[in-house]
This record gives sequence, structure tokens and C-alpha cells, in this order.
Amino acid sequence: MSSIIGHRLKVSVFGQSHAPGIGCVIDGLPAGEAVDLDVLGAFLARRAPGRDAFSTARREDDLPEFVSGLLEGRTCGAPLCAVIRNSDQHSKDYSEIADKPRPGHADYTAHIKYAGAQDVRGGGHFSGRLTAPICIAGGIARQILERRGIRIGAHIYAINGVHDTPFDPCLVSEREFALLENKPFCVLDDAAGTAMQERILAAKGQLDSVGGIIECAVTGLPAGLGDPMFDGMENRLAQILFGIPAVKGVEFGDGFASAALRGSENNDPMTVDAEGNIRMTANHAGGILGGITTGMPLLLRCAIKPTPSIGLPQKTVSLSSGDNAALTVHGRHDPCIVPRAVPVVIAAAAIGILDAMLDDGIGF
Amino acid sequence: MSSIIGHRLKVSVFGQSHAPGIGCVIDGLPAGEAVDLDVLGAFLARRAPGRDAFSTARREDDLPEFVSGLLEGRTCGAPLCAVIRNSDQHSKDYSEIADKPRPGHADYTAHIKYAGAQDVRGGGHFSGRLTAPICIAGGIARQILERRGIRIGAHIYAINGVHDTPFDPCLVSEREFALLENKPFCVLDDAAGTAMQERILAAKGQLDSVGGIIECAVTGLPAGLGDPMFDGMENRLAQILFGIPAVKGVEFGDGFASAALRGSENNDPMTVDAEGNIRMTANHAGGILGGITTGMPLLLRCAIKPTPSIGLPQKTVSLSSGDNAALTVHGRHDPCIVPRAVPVVIAAAAIGILDAMLDDGIGF
Amino acid sequence: MSSIIGHRLKVSVFGQSHAPGIGCVIDGLPAGEAVDLDVLGAFLARRAPGRDAFSTARREDDLPEFVSGLLEGRTCGAPLCAVIRNSDQHSKDYSEIADKPRPGHADYTAHIKYAGAQDVRGGGHFSGRLTAPICIAGGIARQILERRGIRIGAHIYAINGVHDTPFDPCLVSEREFALLENKPFCVLDDAAGTAMQERILAAKGQLDSVGGIIECAVTGLPAGLGDPMFDGMENRLAQILFGIPAVKGVEFGDGFASAALRGSENNDPMTVDAEGNIRMTANHAGGILGGITTGMPLLLRCAIKPTPSIGLPQKTVSLSSGDNAALTVHGRHDPCIVPRAVPVVIAAAAIGILDAMLDDGIGF
Amino acid sequence: MSSIIGHRLKVSVFGQSHAPGIGCVIDGLPAGEAVDLDVLGAFLARRAPGRDAFSTARREDDLPEFVSGLLEGRTCGAPLCAVIRNSDQHSKDYSEIADKPRPGHADYTAHIKYAGAQDVRGGGHFSGRLTAPICIAGGIARQILERRGIRIGAHIYAINGVHDTPFDPCLVSEREFALLENKPFCVLDDAAGTAMQERILAAKGQLDSVGGIIECAVTGLPAGLGDPMFDGMENRLAQILFGIPAVKGVEFGDGFASAALRGSENNDPMTVDAEGNIRMTANHAGGILGGITTGMPLLLRCAIKPTPSIGLPQKTVSLSSGDNAALTVHGRHDPCIVPRAVPVVIAAAAIGILDAMLDDGIGF
Repeated sequence: MSSIIGHRLKVSVFGQSHAPGIGCVIDGLPAGEAVDLDVLGAFLARRAPGRDAFSTARREDDLPEFVSGLLEGRTCGAPLCAVIRNSDQHSKDYSEIADKPRPGHADYTAHIKYAGAQDVRGGGHFSGRLTAPICIAGGIARQILERRGIRIGAHIYAINGVHDTPFDPCLVSEREFALLENKPFCVLDDAAGTAMQERILAAKGQLDSVGGIIECAVTGLPAGLGDPMFDGMENRLAQILFGIPAVKGVEFGDGFASAALRGSENNDPMTVDAEGNIRMTANHAGGILGGITTGMPLLLRCAIKPTPSIGLPQKTVSLSSGDNAALTVHGRHDPCIVPRAVPVVIAAAAIGILDAMLDDGIGF
Repeated sequence: MSSIIGHRLKVSVFGQSHAPGIGCVIDGLPAGEAVDLDVLGAFLARRAPGRDAFSTARREDDLPEFVSGLLEGRTCGAPLCAVIRNSDQHSKDYSEIADKPRPGHADYTAHIKYAGAQDVRGGGHFSGRLTAPICIAGGIARQILERRGIRIGAHIYAINGVHDTPFDPCLVSEREFALLENKPFCVLDDAAGTAMQERILAAKGQLDSVGGIIECAVTGLPAGLGDPMFDGMENRLAQILFGIPAVKGVEFGDGFASAALRGSENNDPMTVDAEGNIRMTANHAGGILGGITTGMPLLLRCAIKPTPSIGLPQKTVSLSSGDNAALTVHGRHDPCIVPRAVPVVIAAAAIGILDAMLDDGIGF
Repeated sequence: MSSIIGHRLKVSVFGQSHAPGIGCVIDGLPAGEAVDLDVLGAFLARRAPGRDAFSTARREDDLPEFVSGLLEGRTCGAPLCAVIRNSDQHSKDYSEIADKPRPGHADYTAHIKYAGAQDVRGGGHFSGRLTAPICIAGGIARQILERRGIRIGAHIYAINGVHDTPFDPCLVSEREFALLENKPFCVLDDAAGTAMQERILAAKGQLDSVGGIIECAVTGLPAGLGDPMFDGMENRLAQILFGIPAVKGVEFGDGFASAALRGSENNDPMTVDAEGNIRMTANHAGGILGGITTGMPLLLRCAIKPTPSIGLPQKTVSLSSGDNAALTVHGRHDPCIVPRAVPVVIAAAAIGILDAMLDDGIGF
Repeated sequence: MSSIIGHRLKVSVFGQSHAPGIGCVIDGLPAGEAVDLDVLGAFLARRAPGRDAFSTARREDDLPEFVSGLLEGRTCGAPLCAVIRNSDQHSKDYSEIADKPRPGHADYTAHIKYAGAQDVRGGGHFSGRLTAPICIAGGIARQILERRGIRIGAHIYAINGVHDTPFDPCLVSEREFALLENKPFCVLDDAAGTAMQERILAAKGQLDSVGGIIECAVTGLPAGLGDPMFDGMENRLAQILFGIPAVKGVEFGDGFASAALRGSENNDPMTVDAEGNIRMTANHAGGILGGITTGMPLLLRCAIKPTPSIGLPQKTVSLSSGDNAALTVHGRHDPCIVPRAVPVVIAAAAIGILDAMLDDGIGF
């Protein structure tokens, strides 16, 4: 439980922010699949901190060591273990945070659950740093999916109330994904992107933070993938996506907006296209009906809450004295983690989709 | 997988709309727990159709038979099996729906997945009728939780864009739950309720349907429940909630709204209250941090898409001829399933929470 | 957990000996598979009591009702639920057994585990009667496997120290299986069978019981089925087989006998046969190496302890008084359950093998 | 699947014999538990090769690095990852083994399953070296269990037909375990031990190998542990034990011998002892009835086949040419792995029992 996900493909995530390392074990990868380490490195770099003014200035060397599972650049059927060293795990005094839980963090809940034995340094196992192993697993899964014509892309859909243009749910394309992949601040509408960046910098200037929404699309999926009821694509993907720290909402297709629609507006009409293929002429369903893919692009959105670490003084309690207390979180923190969370959402989607394909024996 | 959910408490749902019956097996219920069949019956009645003008006029006799697992009104440790007979499974000609998938339904995706072998009558295993067994399992789980001071309530939060007053995330109370339990149209603000009903009737008059949002709260939860990463309370609950047909979005606490907030607004300040207990003075987190309960009320919302069965003509395809086709869905259908889905959301929450408590050995 | 088994194919067994019914839910059956109810009925009849002098005179009408999952004689992709009514659940006074645990039964352990809330009547969920649902699930799985050229057969290998001829591990054949299927007392060597029956009758005459060993073989399996380490064919099959009440040992190939061999004797030499196929010239491994099938027949043996219900007086305790007590178990009981357990072992093997094939996407 | 085991405690084993490393992730360990690294090291040393004339002369430095999950010598609730480096992964030419599967090994089955992409060097993920991570996980679990009064010990019960004295199933004691723990060749009867060693040396002298049986006992278990049917203690332990390479049979209590007994001999009479506790006066059941512990010592035996790597020439095939071929396995190999497998069996038992206790919320 807890940090293991998947049925036929199982990803086990380990590590704490300030332990010797973090990493993952991926059990059930199909054998003989090439893993392009350059492509994987570029994918991981999208999550790495310190690339721009919007993220923390901390440096991470997130190049994983592959302890097992790879043989001459290909998966060999054995569980793949990747470890990333925590280079920067020294020193700092964590006694204040051990006593005063940071609002918005898991400090207090972990303290109760583990009765004080938890690793408080940098958030321990609850740190956003643990999304790096998710990106390793998802980055490898994505390469395997791409080889079967399945592409996954995502963009920053909203920051602090400023919205990007959404994907066209019927026409989202590989070309669009390639474009986003190469943008330092991956939005479809650059003007919206500029406004978003202003919001981030304004919050940063006031020692505050902002949240946002990420939209993710998957193209090339066959119809008929996923299971009914509790193992539908929505269930599987939601279970993984809520594993990304700070995700507080997940929706598919029109999601919460569909609640305001009428059936005649929300139902996707079906048609036989020029090539004789069955498809929908709209995609309010986000490519999923009854938990099973329709063959249209799969679309989802995740709400990311604002970074809980802010430089402003906050009200908390002292666990030792049982009194009210004030806390100011020092150190370098992302005023907005949404840009760095984009590859994590892609990775989560890739893991869920590859697992479903292996479960269904589709594509393998 | 597919129709089985849970770790220590496993619920297996079976049945099709027009098979001899539907039901569930609940494996892992603690032994010796009383099941009040009158209370359960009243809970199931909230989901039953035909109670008012907003739901289908079909009649269901959803009184389950307990085939196993109960002994003199108490759980005996053995898996509990409950079966509901499908009294009304005769006759109707389903050949048109077998050939022309209904837009917005799982007809087409099931056709692809099961290569035409699926039961198309009334939606088969994808029918909303399959939420009755979820209510049996959740209704029993809820009784066990109530005995430990944990209460679950829900209301219709929105219909077709008309919103009810939300729960006060810090002050939601058992009294409020009791009130909602007894309202035929369970909203907090009756004026909003009237407006919602007008929307439903307007849609019904135009052979159309509407969607909505359900808000659910859980009180009395201990802090420290749930696991990190993939088995947090959000992950567990989302996996069940997306098993309710028509749910297209799930959010916790401020959810998507938190994406527009700043950290200073979204972080819940902590305090020591008059009794010396640690709590938060706000609850944007919806009672969950790092996947683990904070001890504050747990709050979630589900988006329910409009009923896909509408009386208006729709565009579809003929699977046999491979041509475009028109379809008009006849028969009696709910213009809005949101009111009847309220107990289903409560049931899903109860199942997820009881499973987490059994996993953690809390309360047992 | 507890009464649910399998990965991609999940079988959930429910019921107690004297509850209204027993049965199973089979989730994950491939869709469109014909289920021949006559063949299934004949298979279930092999397990039914009262067929001869060696089994209890109790009557069971073990014809299952299919509540869901079957459509015009074929699986439809939805979970299949089968229920068998307990016709004979009346009356008898179970107060003595509730107070005095029967030696060799689960009475005492269930009493501790369920704190006295368990159903003591006839052993409740621990009754041998619960093997009927295993036979339903396994009988259906077996039909699906046969359609793919995979045959499963078994014989009584030993009773109370008298041994049958073992299967020839390289040459066991479908013809041999057909022969065994039709024998009322299914042994390969009829003289051994006669001696075994004498042992059973001798024990019966002395109000005692005997145990035995069942040998099972599977032919037609492809090489390459199963997973390494904890999900090998041995692990999967053992987990199911130990779910049959009274099974106390499981071995594959030469099993415990291989412990006395040398490597040069136990290693199976490989060869290329006349058709150019790779195979082994011996089969000490029982068709499994590294948890994965070799393509040779899979062979396993289960030790079945003597029926714990005997007519002789036994020493037990009174749970109410805390004193030593004597107990004589009355009623009709099998002096030897081994003959009736043969189809149950076949069923368990069928479930495990079909699950592994679905997991691996082999044959589907 | 495959290399992950457990419910509430999940152990994920990774690595290949000649990859950079091997190791495990342990998810779900209770927090705050001290891990004595000296005790763990001594336990691992019992499995290490090169300690005597009966094991391979290869050297391993099996000191694990703890990448995560430990904080100042205690578990912190986060998944624990331990990595052992493969110091000796150089050079050797594996092209012959890649082409000619070794009889008795998983070479051929892995070749089929992974379509030639598997790591053939030293057996890859199927190597006996992968039992080191099982010992890490089990060694830690054992420390946690000992703190709750539960002791696990094992001895070499048979080698090549020579038998040790079995444990007294009612009286096996902690003192006996301590004695065995410190014996280089852990048997109860030293004369039998001498005879066994002669058998091993004789086989070694003839470039052959021998198998054997390990008997394991667990004391201090509470009654009531384990679940019915498929998650009983036998099912759980068998699923792990068959994960140890070369295990071909598992039995509990009298196991296969019970098949030759009568019910009156095999049923364990119950009594109230001098302290008023309920216990059995015999223990043919090996401490388990209905899958649930009785409170008596739990006893099990594993059959270990002879080491498949032998120096004698063997018959195999050439995968490239499709012809028959001869193979002589060179290098240093254990003529008998049974002595080194003793701690592995103990480790497997510890993992299964701790998982069951966490599942049942017993002891935590």
C-alpha cells in the first residue's frame, strides 16, 4: 500500500527529501523495451528546480542510477530500480519544524500517524522531491507508449485564476505536444503565460505563493481500454494523480463544467468518418465512457494548491508545549510549483495507461 | 479487478440491469457488528427511483436478500453477500440499442471491450442500477462508523448551474446531516432547492436532462488516518467515487478553487483550542494533508454529468451497417440523477473510510 | 482479502454451511466464452456428497443459480455471480459445538478471531461445503482452458498410506484424464483403489477417518507462463490450494522427494524432438522452472489430512466454563473426503492457470 | 506482481546477479521500530557464501546500504530501501549460457517469457543471490516480531535422505533456536549433521549436488492470526516460501505425513492447562486450523531441490541452432544450498507473519 501503485505494472516509490536517496522500483515492465536515457534526462529536467525565476534556487542532480532492470539500454523483464542521490542532505536545524507543524504541509498529520518517528527534514517522504521517481517511472512508460503511437502532453491551464486556452478536445495533436515540450513555460497562449508569470512574481515578491491547474491529453489510445466500475481509466488515473503532492482535484473531459450542462449538450454525437472509422464529433466525455476509452483523446485536469511553504509568518502550534505558536518558514521555495508539476502529471498518466494496457493485453 | 474495491475491506459488485439480480459481496467486515435493516432500508430508499417528479417512474423493489454473512442481525466475520432481484427484466426489444450505441453511455466502449458479447439490456453492468449494491455496502459501513462517532452527510450542491450554500468546512454538524437525511430534496438552502427543481422540470419538459454537483462531509474522523502517496484518503475515495456512473470530477476541500488562491489564503492556520486540542481555524484542505486526515471534517465534491438518456433524437452510428444513424431513446429516465446519487456518494465515502480504518487498525 | 483470490481473474467466495446460501463472484472472466451447464453440472456432481459409501449421506442440491454474468449461455464480461441454496439449514442444536470446539476444526481459531460472533453451525464459512463455489469457478475456468488445448486431470494418489501409480510426468495424457473423469473412485491402478476403499471402510467402521494425497496434472500449457519470485505458478497455485480445507501440504514435480536426489538425477535434460520442438526428456521439475512453465506437463500433489469430524469421543474444552470437556461429534460425516476433493483440486488449478494466462495476455 | 509480496507490509525485491546491485523496498513497516544493524548483519552472514566447504567459494560483501526509511536507527514510516552492490559483476563470457539453457535452471523459461531480452548473467533475477534482499526484509521483520515475544528458528531437517531429529511440535523453544542460531551447520542432532556433511562432500567430489528439507518453527504467536480460505497463514507463507528459488514443496504440521494418519491420530486434543490457558496436547496441525493460528507453535517444512548447477556434463539444446547440445557448467557453485537457505526460510516466515499481524491489527 501507500507508496506502491498499479496492477500488472507496479511502481514502488521510496525515499525522503534528506535521506541518502530517493527512487523507485518498477515491476512488470515489458521486456526488450529500449530506454533512451537522453530523452529520459530531458524529461526529468523539466521537473528539476532552479531552471527559472519561478522555481526554487536549490540545485538537484536528478540523474538516476539504474541499479537493476536495464541491460544494454533495454528492459530485461526484471524489476527496474532507479536511485537518485540526495546530494544536499546536510546540516540544517530541523528542530523548529519538528516542533511546529507547517500549515498546509503533512507535518502534523505525519506526526500523528507515525507517533513522532517520521523524518521531518524537508517534508521527508511527503516532499515534492518524491515526484522525481514518479517521473522516472512515467518517463520510461511514456517511451514505451510512444512506440505504440500513444502520445501524452500537458500544459499549464491556469495559475492563480489566469487561464490558458484549453486543448481542443477533438483535435489536440502531437505537434501541439512537441511545441509545449520545448517551451520553458508551457502554455498554448503566450499572452496568458505572461500574465501567469506576473502573478507568480507578484506572489513571490510578497513572500507568498500561488496555485494552478494542469491540463493533460493523451492521443492515439485504442477504444476499449480500461475496466468497469472501480478500475476504469478515471479511477486508475485519479488514484495516481492524487499521489502527486498538492493535487486537490481531478476531472476528466468537461468535468465540473459538465455539471452545468444539459444532456443534449454533454452527450458526444457519434459518426462514421471518411475512413469508415467510428468516432465522436465532440469530446465532452474526455475520451472515457463507463471507465473505458472511446478512442477519442483522453483529457484530464488537476488542481494544484498553492505551495504551502511561504515566507510570511503563520499561525501554528508547538507540539512540545501544547501552546499556540508563530512560524516563519525560511529557505528557498517555489512560489508556484505548477510549471514543474507538468511533467509529473504526464508521468502519472503514462504509468496509469501503460498499466491498463498491460492489464488488458492491448499493445503487447 | 474492475468491480472489486478495497484493501482490508473488499467490496465486489455484481449484476446487470436485466440479469436475474444484482448485489455485492463484502469481505473483511469486522465481526459482531449489528446491521439495522430498517436503517439500511431507509438509506436504500433514498436511492430508489420513482419517489418524486424528478426521477424515473420505474419501480424497483430494492430490498436485498442476505445470502450470507449475517447471523441474528450481526456480522459473523464471513463474507456478506446481498442479492437484489431484478423484478422487471422482461421483454423489451433491445435490438436497436445493440446496433446503435447511445451517446454518452458505455454502449460503444463496452461493445469494443467485450467484442459484442456484453449485455446491452438497460446498460448491463454499466447501469446506474448497480449503485444499489454500493449503497448496501456503504450503508452497512456507515452504521459501523457511526457507532465510532463518525458521521457522513451530503447535499445537492449544484444542479445545472444553480448552487446551494456549501457546508461550513469547520462547523458542519451531525444536526445538519440529520436535517438533510429527512429532506426529500436535500439542500441546505430551500430557495436554491426550488430553483434547482425548476431547472430539472424545464429540462424534463424539453425531453432533456441536467447534471449537478454533490458535496459530502465526514465528521468525527481521528487525525492520522490514511497513507502517503497512492493510498491517501483522496486516492482511496477518488478511486471509489469514480466508480459511480456519471461522476466526471472529484475534489477535496477547496479543490479546483484552491488553484486560484494564494498560499497565505489556502494554508489552514493551526491552534490549540479551549480543551487543549490541536485543530485548524480554517479547512481549505478539506481535512486531508499529505493524504492523511487532520481531524477536521473531511469534505469532498463530485461532479455528476447530465443523464445521458434523453428523449431528444441523437446522432449515432449503426454498428451493423457502418453508417451514420439517428437514435431516439424511449422509455422512462431520470431527467436528473443527482438527488438519487446523494446516498451513493455517502456510501462510497463510508466504504473508503471504513477500509482505511481497518487498514490502519484504528477504531477496531 | 481472505476469501478472494486472483489478479486479473478474481474469485470471491461467500457463504456459510447453514446460511441461506453459498456461492461465488467471478470478476474478470473473458467475455463471449460459452459455459456448458451440463458439463459444469457433471463436474460439480463429482464433488457432491452422498454418491457412495465413502462420503456422507447428506444430500445437497448443488445446482447453482446464475444471478449475473451469463447471457444466452456465454460470459458477457460482467462479474458472474452463482448462488447455491442451502436447502438443509434447519433446526439442529449447535449449542454444544458453540461451547466445545471440535479438535481438528477451525471452531476454536474462529472463536478467537471473531470473538464469538462467528457462525458455528456446520463450520460456517470454514465448512468443506464452501468448496462447491470453488468448483463452480474452476469448472468454468476449465472449460475456457480446454478450448485452448489445456487439460487438467487428477487422481487419488494415496489414502491412509496406500498409494496409486503416479502419473507419468512426461506422458500424462488427455485419454488418461477422460478415463479418470468417469471412474467413480478415480485411481489409475484399480487394485490400489480397492485397497484404499478397504482402508476407508475400516476407518468408518471404527468411527474414525483417513486422509490422503491427490495428484493433479495439467497438459497443453505453453512455455513461458507465470512470473518470477512471488507470482510464479507454484506460488499462485499453492495460495489457492491451501484454501481448500484440510490441505496441509503442496508440492510440485518431485517435490519433497527431490530433496533426496542429486542434481544429476533431478535436472531435466533438454532435447530437440522430431518436430523440432524443445522439450525435456524427464520432468522432475513438474513443468515449472523459476516459477515459469517449461511446456512440459505441470504436476502437483496436495496432502489432505483425515476428516477431523469423527464419531469417537475426543478431548476438548468448554469455552463457557473454562474446564476440560469430552465431545462426541454426531451426525453424518465423510470418513474420507479425498475422493470428493479431487474436482476441487482440479478447480483450484484451473482458476490459478486461467488467472496467470490472463495476466500474461497468453491465449486471449 | 512477480517480485512484490504482502498486503499491509509489502516487500518489493529487485536486482540481478550481475546488475550493479540487488535490494528491496519494504513498504508499510511500522514506524519507530529500532533496527539493530549488528543483529541484522549476523543474520545476513548466515546466508552469505564462502563460509565453509559446503558453499561456493565466491565472496560477497552483502552489507546493505539503507537508502531510505531509517532515521537514527529506527524506521520512520517511509518505505525502507536497502541496496547491496554486486562487487563481482565483471567479465565472464555468458554467450554459451545465453545459447544453451542450463537444465534445472530458469534459463529456458526466462528465454521464452522475455523473448530473449532477459539478463542471462548468473541467472539474472532468478539467481539465488536474490534471497539476500529477502533476508534483509525478513531480518528486520524478525526483530520487530521478537520485540513482541514471537521467535522464529529453523534447522536443516534433511540432506539427500539423511534426516535430523524434528522439532518437538509442542515444546520447541527459544533456547533451541538460540543454539541453532550459533551452529555453523544448524542441526539438532550433530551425528545426523555429520552424516549430512558427508553426503554433501561426496556429491561435491563427484561434481554433483544434493537437496534437502528445512524445518522452521515460530513460537509466541497469539491465537486468532490469519484469515480464512485464501489468506490463511498457510496460503500467505506458501506464497512467500515458493518465492525462494529451488523450493518445490511446502507443508505445515504433519503435512504429507498426515495423509497417512487417521483422524483420531491427527486431531490435536484440547485442554485447559495449569494456568487456565486453552492449548492443544499435540500439534499435528502445526499451529494452524482453518488458516488461523491456534496459539501452538507454527511449524512448516520446505523441500529444496538439489542445486541445478553441477560440474557434470548435461544434455541441453542450442537455442540458436535448434540442435541438441552438451553443456558443462563451470565456475564455483554450492554443492548444497540448504544450509544457506535456512535464514532465507526464517526471513520468509518473518515477512508473512508480520504482514498478517499488521493486517489483523494484532500487536500494533
